[in-house]
Amino acid sequence: MAEKLLEFFLSKEAKYTMDPETEALLEKLFAKDSELYQNRGFQRRIGWGKKPALINVDLANAWTQEGSPFTCPGMETIIPAVNQVLAAFRAKGLPVVFTTTAYEITEGDHTDMGLWAKKIPAETNAAGSKAVEIDERLGRRPEELVIVKKQASAFHGTNLASFLTAAEVDTIVVTGATASGCIRSTVADGIAEGFRPIVVRECIGDRIAGAVEWNLFDIDAKFGDVEPLKAVLERLRRNEPYSHEYPGVQQE
Amino acid sequence: MAEKLLEFFLSKEAKYTMDPETEALLEKLFAKDSELYQNRGFQRRIGWGKKPALINVDLANAWTQEGSPFTCPGMETIIPAVNQVLAAFRAKGLPVVFTTTAYEITEGDHTDMGLWAKKIPAETNAAGSKAVEIDERLGRRPEELVIVKKQASAFHGTNLASFLTAAEVDTIVVTGATASGCIRSTVADGIAEGFRPIVVRECIGDRIAGAVEWNLFDIDAKFGDVEPLKAVLERLRRNEPYSHEYPGVQQE
Amino acid sequence: MAEKLLEFFLSKEAKYTMDPETEALLEKLFAKDSELYQNRGFQRRIGWGKKPALINVDLANAWTQEGSPFTCPGMETIIPAVNQVLAAFRAKGLPVVFTTTAYEITEGDHTDMGLWAKKIPAETNAAGSKAVEIDERLGRRPEELVIVKKQASAFHGTNLASFLTAAEVDTIVVTGATASGCIRSTVADGIAEGFRPIVVRECIGDRIAGAVEWNLFDIDAKFGDVEPLKAVLERLRRNEPYSHEYPGVQQE
Amino acid sequence: MAEKLLEFFLSKEAKYTMDPETEALLEKLFAKDSELYQNRGFQRRIGWGKKPALINVDLANAWTQEGSPFTCPGMETIIPAVNQVLAAFRAKGLPVVFTTTAYEITEGDHTDMGLWAKKIPAETNAAGSKAVEIDERLGRRPEELVIVKKQASAFHGTNLASFLTAAEVDTIVVTGATASGCIRSTVADGIAEGFRPIVVRECIGDRIAGAVEWNLFDIDAKFGDVEPLKAVLERLRRNEPYSHEYPGVQQE
Repeated sequence: MAEKLLEFFLSKEAKYTMDPETEALLEKLFAKDSELYQNRGFQRRIGWGKKPALINVDLANAWTQEGSPFTCPGMETIIPAVNQVLAAFRAKGLPVVFTTTAYEITEGDHTDMGLWAKKIPAETNAAGSKAVEIDERLGRRPEELVIVKKQASAFHGTNLASFLTAAEVDTIVVTGATASGCIRSTVADGIAEGFRPIVVRECIGDRIAGAVEWNLFDIDAKFGDVEPLKAVLERLRRNEPYSHEYPGVQQE
Repeated sequence: MAEKLLEFFLSKEAKYTMDPETEALLEKLFAKDSELYQNRGFQRRIGWGKKPALINVDLANAWTQEGSPFTCPGMETIIPAVNQVLAAFRAKGLPVVFTTTAYEITEGDHTDMGLWAKKIPAETNAAGSKAVEIDERLGRRPEELVIVKKQASAFHGTNLASFLTAAEVDTIVVTGATASGCIRSTVADGIAEGFRPIVVRECIGDRIAGAVEWNLFDIDAKFGDVEPLKAVLERLRRNEPYSHEYPGVQQE
Repeated sequence: MAEKLLEFFLSKEAKYTMDPETEALLEKLFAKDSELYQNRGFQRRIGWGKKPALINVDLANAWTQEGSPFTCPGMETIIPAVNQVLAAFRAKGLPVVFTTTAYEITEGDHTDMGLWAKKIPAETNAAGSKAVEIDERLGRRPEELVIVKKQASAFHGTNLASFLTAAEVDTIVVTGATASGCIRSTVADGIAEGFRPIVVRECIGDRIAGAVEWNLFDIDAKFGDVEPLKAVLERLRRNEPYSHEYPGVQQE
Repeated sequence: MAEKLLEFFLSKEAKYTMDPETEALLEKLFAKDSELYQNRGFQRRIGWGKKPALINVDLANAWTQEGSPFTCPGMETIIPAVNQVLAAFRAKGLPVVFTTTAYEITEGDHTDMGLWAKKIPAETNAAGSKAVEIDERLGRRPEELVIVKKQASAFHGTNLASFLTAAEVDTIVVTGATASGCIRSTVADGIAEGFRPIVVRECIGDRIAGAVEWNLFDIDAKFGDVEPLKAVLERLRRNEPYSHEYPGVQQE
C-alpha cells in the first residue's frame, strides 16, 4: 500500500485527483496528526473579519501555462475556481490584488533577484516578458492592482500591507501558486502582519507531488483557515457590499 | 507497506529514528520529486558567505521540555547537536542569537499576540515565565542576544535583520523548532532579506510526524541549504576567526 | 531682530514659551512656506478614522527627567498634557501603547544597538535601567503595552504595525519625544504603513532649539495632522466607546 | 536682521545661494545647537564601510523639471553634482540605484497611494507618465536598478534592503529630493536597517525655504553623515574596485 501512496505522489504531478485508497490513507495520517494538534490547542479557526481582500498569488503565465520551470499542473480546475471567487469579490466591490514575480535585472553583479536565483531559476522571470503577465483567463481589470514582488511572500518588499491597511482590510482570501512557496510565505506573513488569512482549497496549485496537501495542512494548523470554495462563496454572498466611507472622519 | 509509512509517521512523534524501510521509501519519494526539481533548475546550492551568524530558534523550555502544548520530541539529540554548533561559533567569535516567543499581555482586547492566538495556544507563552526562557543546557552567554519575537519568523517585527546587517553578517546558520513553523518562516524570510540560510539537519525539531522531513525538503528546494551537522562543523573550522574591524573606514 | 530669533532658539532649550515677537516671525515664515504648499496641494488633512490608538513615544526617564544625554526640557507641561490624552483613551477603552528605547548588549562586537551608537549615545540606555523605564507620572497600566524599540521609529523592527492591524486600529495619536528623532520617524512610518497619524501639539518635546517647530511643520505638510490638545480631546469625546466584537466573524 | 533671515528663507525657494549675513546667522545657530549635541555625545561620525551603493532618490522629472507640484529648484547645480558621484560609482563598478515614486491606480476606492494622497498631491505621479521617469540628464544605464516606491522612504515597501544585503553593501551614499521628505525618511530607515548613510551636501534639493538646511542638520546629528561632494569623491577614489566574488563560498 505504501507503493500505492508513492504512486499517488508521483502521479500527482500530472493530475490533482487522488485514488480513493490513497486519499483515505492521507486522511488517516492527517487525522492522527490533527488529534495531537487538537489536544494541544492548535488548528483553531481564525474566522473572517469585516472587509476581505482577494490576493491572487502568481497566477501569471509562468505558473499557469506550459513551458516554464515554474509551470504547475491542475490549472484547468484552479483557474475556473479562482474566477468564481473573483466574481464574488467584484460583485461586492471588495479589493482584488494580483501578484507576479518579475525581475528588471537578471544578469551581472547587481540583480534585483536578491539571493533567490542561487536556489531557484528566478532568472527566467524577466520583467516585461509574457511569462510574468497575469493569465488572461482571469480577465484582470484596470482597477485591480498588480504587485510585482521579488521574493516568495506577497508582503516581503512590497506595498501590500500598506495597501491593505489603508483600505481597512482585515481579511485576506488567498489563491494561486505555489503551495510550498509563495502561498505559504504569503499566508505566514499575512497573519504575522495582523490579517486573517483564508485559503481557498480548490484554488491552490504546486508543481511537486504532495506539496499542496502537506502545506495546506501546516497552514491550517497554524497560520490561516483552509476552506472549501463553496464555503468561501457562501461567506462572500453574506458580506455587506463595500461602501467607501469613513464615518469617523468629520474633520473640522 | 503504506501502513508501515503511516506507522512511521505516527511513531515519529515519540522518536526521531526511522526504521530503514520507511527511510528508504521516503528517500525514494523525495528522490523522484528532486528529479523534477533538478530538471527545472531548483535545489541549487546557496553556499556560505564570509561571516555567518547562528540563529537558535525557540530553543526555550516550552519547546525543549515536557509539559507545554509546544513541546517537541527529540531534544535529547537536538540539544547536544546545537551545542556542537554553538561551540564552533563561540570559538571563532562569530555572532550567536537566540530567539524565544513570549507575550506581555495575553488577556483582554489588546494583546501583543496579534492574531496568532486565534490559531495556536500562544497565550501559554507568557513573558517572564520559565516556559519562554532559553533552555539552560545551551549555556547562553550574556553577550549572546535573545530576541523576543511575537510571530513565527525570527525576522518579523524584530531587530534581527538590522542586527545582522550592522554586524556585516551574510549567512545565517539555523537551528531549533519547529520545522513547520518558526524554522520555515525564519529561513524563508532570511533569504528574502538577503542572507544565506544554512539549516543544520540534526538540529531541527517539530512536534508532528513527518513535519521535519517535509519542511526541510521544501526549504532545501527553494529557500536555503539543508546540511548535515558534520559538514557545518567542518565549514566553520575553516572560517577565519572574526576580527572586528572595518578596513574601509578611515574617516578623516 | 534676527538676534531675537536666535536668542529665542537658544533660550528655547530651557523653556518652551516664546516671546510674542519671535512667535510672530516664525508664524510669518511658516505662513509663507504654507502658501507654496497650499498652492501645490500639500498640507491636506488626513483626518481621523474609526479606531485610534495612542502611541506615547519614549516618555521614559532618560527623556523626561534630568541627567541623561537624552533629557528634553518642557516635560512639566508635556507630561500633564499627555495625561489628559491618556485619560481620554482609557475612558473609551481604546488601545494605549508606550515605547522606550533600550539595549540588552551595549558592549563588544555584536550589540543590539545596530549602527545607531555610531551617531548618538545609545549606549547609555541599557535595558533594565531606571533610565529606560516609562515615567511614573504617566501611571502606565499593566494592560498597556510597552514596546522596546532599538531604532528611532516605533514601527522599525517592532511588532507595532502587527499589533495595530490585529486590533483594527486605523489612526495613531502620537505624543512624546523627540520631534526631530523618534516622533518624526514614527509618524513617517505610520502613514507609510497605512495608519492616520495625529500629532498632539502640546505633547511633543525635543532637546534642541527650534526642532519641535520645524519638524512639526514638515510633518503637518506631508505625513500627519498636527492638532492642538483641545481639538484632540474633543474628537475623542465624540468617539464611540470601543466594543470588542467582530461582527463579520460568524464562522460556521 | 531677522527680516533678513526671513527674506533669505523666502528667496531661497528660487535659488540655493545664501547671502553671507544669513549664512553666518544660520551657522551661528547650528553651531550653538551643535555645542549641546557635542556635549551630549550626538553628531558622531558613522563613517564609510567597505562597499557603498549610490541611492539617487526621486531624481525623476516631477522633481527635477518645472511644472509639477513636486518641482524643486536648484537642479542646475544638483544634477551636475549627482553626475560626478555617478561617474565615481560607475568607475568602480559599485551598485547604483534610482528611485521614483509612481502609482498604478490613482482613482477609485483602492489605489496604491495608500493614505499619502490624503496629505500630498501623490495622484499627479501616475506610473507610465513622463513625470515619474528618471531625468535623462543622469543617463541611467540598463544595469542600474530603478525602484518604484509608493511612500517617502526608499526602503518602505520595496526590495531595497534585500537588494543591498544580497549585494553585500554596507554603506549608502544618498542624493536627490526632497530633504524634508524622501531623503530624510530614506536616511532614517537606512541606518535603522544597518547601512551607513552618507548624504552628499551639494546633491540634495527641496522645494521649501530652509528645508535642506534644517533637515540635513537633523540628519547629521542623528542618522547619517552629511559630507561635501569633494570629500565623497575623494573617498570613492580610494575605494577598491568592486570585484564580484565570495571568497567564503567553497561549497563542496
